[in-house]
Amino acid sequence: MPIRRLPERALHDRTELYAVLDAGWVATLAVAAGDRAQVVPVLYGRDGDSILVHGSTGAGTLRLAAAGRPVTLCVTHLDGFVYAASLFESSANYRSAVVEGVCERLDGDAAHDALHMLGERLMPGRSAEVRANRPKEYAATMVLRLPITDGAWTAKARAAGPSHEPDDDPQVWTGVLPIETRLGTPVPSELAAARGIPLAASIVARLFPDR
Amino acid sequence: MPIRRLPERALHDRTELYAVLDAGWVATLAVAAGDRAQVVPVLYGRDGDSILVHGSTGAGTLRLAAAGRPVTLCVTHLDGFVYAASLFESSANYRSAVVEGVCERLDGDAAHDALHMLGERLMPGRSAEVRANRPKEYAATMVLRLPITDGAWTAKARAAGPSHEPDDDPQVWTGVLPIETRLGTPVPSELAAARGIPLAASIVARLFPDR
Repeated sequence: MPIRRLPERALHDRTELYAVLDAGWVATLAVAAGDRAQVVPVLYGRDGDSILVHGSTGAGTLRLAAAGRPVTLCVTHLDGFVYAASLFESSANYRSAVVEGVCERLDGDAAHDALHMLGERLMPGRSAEVRANRPKEYAATMVLRLPITDGAWTAKARAAGPSHEPDDDPQVWTGVLPIETRLGTPVPSELAAARGIPLAASIVARLFPDR
Repeated sequence: MPIRRLPERALHDRTELYAVLDAGWVATLAVAAGDRAQVVPVLYGRDGDSILVHGSTGAGTLRLAAAGRPVTLCVTHLDGFVYAASLFESSANYRSAVVEGVCERLDGDAAHDALHMLGERLMPGRSAEVRANRPKEYAATMVLRLPITDGAWTAKARAAGPSHEPDDDPQVWTGVLPIETRLGTPVPSELAAARGIPLAASIVARLFPDR
């Protein structure tokens, strides 16, 4: 099925930004440190108008973020290679979001709630299947909330076929080679395999949401 | 098939770093700009002991990088969710690389060669199927080379099942839910579809490398 050409475009609507954020699980978190940018990949989840990230209390970049250093969080989805009739016109389909701001470090009940939200985003339904975190485990985990502020985010997307020019070679195939990300077949731990434990219901529901 | 547990680990060997880099196409490029980090997603390709990135001459973060501002390039592959018997022990399998350095902006033949290399990394075999770039197209494209310097890169990976603790609930399924990235079914442009142009040989070879 041929695809329709849509332009590369900036997304101006929070609904579109949130769709980009909600389609991913991993981001880069960057802070300036002198004349360098310090960058670490993080798992994240959107919670309303904020982004939650967590990590070990020992992680350097997260500690700078927790101390109030401005952060830049970037999420990118590479959706396909766009094969045009020249390399110059060739491109990529993608969705990306950049959110800047200052994180708030969460404590107490707010941290517990945020870890629960983040867990549900990353492993939906799992928290009901496993024991609660212990106090020393909460203490070892840093949870940060990055508010999504007007004027402090950008999002872009390209979802289109190639550009054509009048003098393109008409015999060259042009189009899009999609890149797909999907969940694979669950692999049990040695213990779960040895005991014959059935696959977690939360994973069954995640893999087959329509059943 | 049960998986064996391997620890999360830092990769110290360039061969391992290069494998992480060569498995991806998109990175984030970050520069410090005052107290902020400015971040942009970029397509990249490794060329020997360097990383090539390119973009429009109008792109702000790339212009700072071209002007000699230190950059931090980050590549992340999220490979799976690790379901342990508690959320605290749960984790992610991933491979990541962070390379810091100062970019060199390439001109003339070096820029032409670098764009060719980058094109071959992103769309193998395509350059032989399409016309060469034109002088004004080269002029509109900025190509940067980031050398990979000893002591200025880190790479990490986790590829393992969950940790177990003695008091884990033995009835809880634990294991890994893999995340897979793959190339999809090519979608012809309207023009290629209307003309019945056969799929480019370079894409056939890319999708079926063993044929």
